Amino acid sequence: MQMPFQLTILGSSSAMPTSKRYPTAQVLNVLGRFFLIDCGEGTQHQLRKNKIGFGRLDHIFISHLHGDHFFGLIGFISTQVLLGRTKDLHIYAHSELQRYTQYQLDFLGTEELGFRLVFHPLNFKKEQVIFDEEKLTITSFPLHHRIPCCGFLFREKSKEPNIKKGKLKQYKIPIREIKYIKAGADFQTEKGDIIPNKELVIPPAAPRSFAFCSDTAYHESIIPIISKVDLLYHEATFAESEKKLAQATFHSTGADAASIAKQANVGKLLIGHFSARYKTPEIILEEARAIFPNTEAIIENEVFKVVRD
Amino acid sequence: MQMPFQLTILGSSSAMPTSKRYPTAQVLNVLGRFFLIDCGEGTQHQLRKNKIGFGRLDHIFISHLHGDHFFGLIGFISTQVLLGRTKDLHIYAHSELQRYTQYQLDFLGTEELGFRLVFHPLNFKKEQVIFDEEKLTITSFPLHHRIPCCGFLFREKSKEPNIKKGKLKQYKIPIREIKYIKAGADFQTEKGDIIPNKELVIPPAAPRSFAFCSDTAYHESIIPIISKVDLLYHEATFAESEKKLAQATFHSTGADAASIAKQANVGKLLIGHFSARYKTPEIILEEARAIFPNTEAIIENEVFKVVRD
Repeated sequence: MQMPFQLTILGSSSAMPTSKRYPTAQVLNVLGRFFLIDCGEGTQHQLRKNKIGFGRLDHIFISHLHGDHFFGLIGFISTQVLLGRTKDLHIYAHSELQRYTQYQLDFLGTEELGFRLVFHPLNFKKEQVIFDEEKLTITSFPLHHRIPCCGFLFREKSKEPNIKKGKLKQYKIPIREIKYIKAGADFQTEKGDIIPNKELVIPPAAPRSFAFCSDTAYHESIIPIISKVDLLYHEATFAESEKKLAQATFHSTGADAASIAKQANVGKLLIGHFSARYKTPEIILEEARAIFPNTEAIIENEVFKVVRD
Repeated sequence: MQMPFQLTILGSSSAMPTSKRYPTAQVLNVLGRFFLIDCGEGTQHQLRKNKIGFGRLDHIFISHLHGDHFFGLIGFISTQVLLGRTKDLHIYAHSELQRYTQYQLDFLGTEELGFRLVFHPLNFKKEQVIFDEEKLTITSFPLHHRIPCCGFLFREKSKEPNIKKGKLKQYKIPIREIKYIKAGADFQTEKGDIIPNKELVIPPAAPRSFAFCSDTAYHESIIPIISKVDLLYHEATFAESEKKLAQATFHSTGADAASIAKQANVGKLLIGHFSARYKTPEIILEEARAIFPNTEAIIENEVFKVVRD
């Protein structure tokens, strides 16, 4: 069974609330670790609905400081206090969010959190690795919005190939040679025969990737950064009929998102952050699919899996 | 048709979020005017779900400054800005909430609201009339919680009786006498006959009333204030088995709420603010009904009407 790499949609609307959609929030599950991306009002409720335990979330990424992307944070932190959290909670956001959150906690009279809130300020000028562990790298990169805003790229690291069953014994491969074979080397037997690498190893699953881009105007600078990701979420607030409004408010249309997806040659495009003026996102989706067919409009509680054959 | 006097439940849980309940928020519709009582996270979403237009809400009552009772306020205000509100928005709350809200608005870079936010500080020491208009009086009164907390009493004003059809002509009643008859006077005809008041008037519908009590420990001082209200909402966070925890956290059990309702001789009791430890509030409800049978456990999107026969 392949380890999960899957995205759960907690909120898909833009700033104006609707009866069916919540403001932006998504959770990415990478190999059983959960990453919360944006935290609009109602995120807690939606986490409960999707049975994602609060204690499993140690890393929160806030793209920018418009309310519909972070108003749910103080409630989430307050609940962690109630739950008796002790683990560090990491927040990747504009540096100002630390001051704001501290002000809120002081106001609420929260003397002792019981855990460390670790703030990691984002760089809104250039691409930057903000998380780098054994199996995963997370990169932030600047988007183009009214205020400083970052996208996030989650990329699994390349795995090593496995040596095929029986080959160690068959060719009497010494243990010291294994690391070279896993790195791609052929193997020379005692008799001097060369066994090509591809006969010895099962190639690893290709690393999987997801990029999150909200909120942003059409912005071609991101194309090389998100090139060939398996799954791209790109906001699509408006239809083409509101193109001027999209430009004026530094948002994208469905066609903008699809054009970025096409140029970046991504696997699948998800669009969301729909303006409340549209009863359904159908027209936005149609306009996107005309440019990039493998597009879906997100809705609350949907799960998108990246699976390798 | 009788004008409405009805309560809509937007949120019924206590601080810990659940998948089915939102933190505290209720809307009282009095004769077509809407009053928002507490504003937990998700209030906006719930207003939309219940088709209550944001522009119809001009008065917000915040019982106390625990997050589950006001974290939804900044989102609500932000949405009013997006909607282009121009009417005053009145907030009845602890005086500190003004500073907090202003800090948030400054942080968000909201330079011009477009409407006035009018803060009315509550008095946590004694009962006080905080709203007094032609048809309705609203009174705040102290509850007994860990931090300053107020309940709210909404009471229709007594209406004048109507003069029965035909009586003016029948007894040749001069217009100047009408106000005396409406105030309860008998009428003396030209011939000197005394017509008793009850033959002349149709008595008005009795004024309707609702009291909101959350959060609070069992607190008998409120009994005379909420005496004989038609509808009482009283928190009931715990079952009797958690009586000690209720006392330690300044909350009530269902039995506490029912005992208050019984002593105050109210018409109907609603209980809510249930701790997330109970999968259903059944046991709390049972314990309350054993003391005060006309009790209901609230749930999101329910509407309770006060109707006169």
